[in-house]
Amino acid sequence: MPDVLLHLRSDARDNRDRILEVAREVFAADGLDVPMREIARRAEVGPATLYRHFPTKENLVTVAFQQQMRACTTIVDEGLADPDPWRGFRTVIERVCELHALDRGFTAAFISAFPKAIDFAGAREDQLAKLATLSSRAIRAGTLRPDFVMDDLYLLIMANSGIRGTTPAATLAAARRFAALMIQSFRVQPLTVPLPPAARLGLTRHQSSSR
Amino acid sequence: MPDVLLHLRSDARDNRDRILEVAREVFAADGLDVPMREIARRAEVGPATLYRHFPTKENLVTVAFQQQMRACTTIVDEGLADPDPWRGFRTVIERVCELHALDRGFTAAFISAFPKAIDFAGAREDQLAKLATLSSRAIRAGTLRPDFVMDDLYLLIMANSGIRGTTPAATLAAARRFAALMIQSFRVQPLTVPLPPAARLGLTRHQSSSR
Repeated sequence: MPDVLLHLRSDARDNRDRILEVAREVFAADGLDVPMREIARRAEVGPATLYRHFPTKENLVTVAFQQQMRACTTIVDEGLADPDPWRGFRTVIERVCELHALDRGFTAAFISAFPKAIDFAGAREDQLAKLATLSSRAIRAGTLRPDFVMDDLYLLIMANSGIRGTTPAATLAAARRFAALMIQSFRVQPLTVPLPPAARLGLTRHQSSSR
Repeated sequence: MPDVLLHLRSDARDNRDRILEVAREVFAADGLDVPMREIARRAEVGPATLYRHFPTKENLVTVAFQQQMRACTTIVDEGLADPDPWRGFRTVIERVCELHALDRGFTAAFISAFPKAIDFAGAREDQLAKLATLSSRAIRAGTLRPDFVMDDLYLLIMANSGIRGTTPAATLAAARRFAALMIQSFRVQPLTVPLPPAARLGLTRHQSSSR
């Protein structure tokens, strides 16, 4: 193969990597509403190059957070496989808070339901269905409070996204303490008091149930 | 007084009100880093007019959120006056979460310590000192968990700021449920488990203490 072609391929790979890196940074700082043109500008590529690698923003988001989405699926699968449903549920919350604390762009992507991002939305739906099963088990086991609803998970992820330390390590430490407090509040306790009505935040398709 | 002067005065008042309204909107949407020049542009006044009314951004922030800061002081004073320290503490958390859920700009202002915003920072310090007293009382009464620290309040306010419903009413409902969950986690329970280390988030001057 002529050297010039090898060189071009390497350039294309560099462009793709740089676009993904910039996209993750921009989504983390400013959310998903940033225009594709702006991402191209910051990655120092032309719009045509950007669209050649990533035909839509949904596609860019899906690829940018593929690794986090896989990590999330592993967390949920391991939680569901735990023979103790409360331990499984608790561990999922701890690990999900940590994962999201390390990447605000992933939280933005996870929260916004992208109807056209088939892979991404599909993985999310799959995870939520599994979590609904896990939480139903924990409720039946008498450990998770029976008025827990799947919207409470959404509430947790959104609240976790508001926590910002002065360094990534401080943010992670704060997210860990926050997760522990939330786990405490989800646990059935002798002094458990009823909660206000569940907040309808969008994850209404999968409901945990003690039935 | 000539009509023209009356007219000017009324114009000046309109400008001031419009600047404050725009500032609250902009701070809520984009945080406090928005330049003064941008606030002037959106309020459709010249920079000179903006600086005549509000010589510094600290001054603008202080005046824009004066009402919320007074409401916050009332909440804290009423909590501290409650003969039952746990009920006082719990009520403060409920009302603070509601207040902040209704105004994200106020959260941004409250969280960032403006060294030059004397009135604002002074009111905040005063509130935090009172809350440290209230939480120490609740810990001594055996109702608030002894490992509660003032940074947990900061954690709560930051987490609350991440919650966004599709409407203000949905955000408020979600903030109420969130507050109830956090209150549950702060309550000493027979099944209370130790928390990870406290997150150092900035409010280290006032520490609650069971001593």
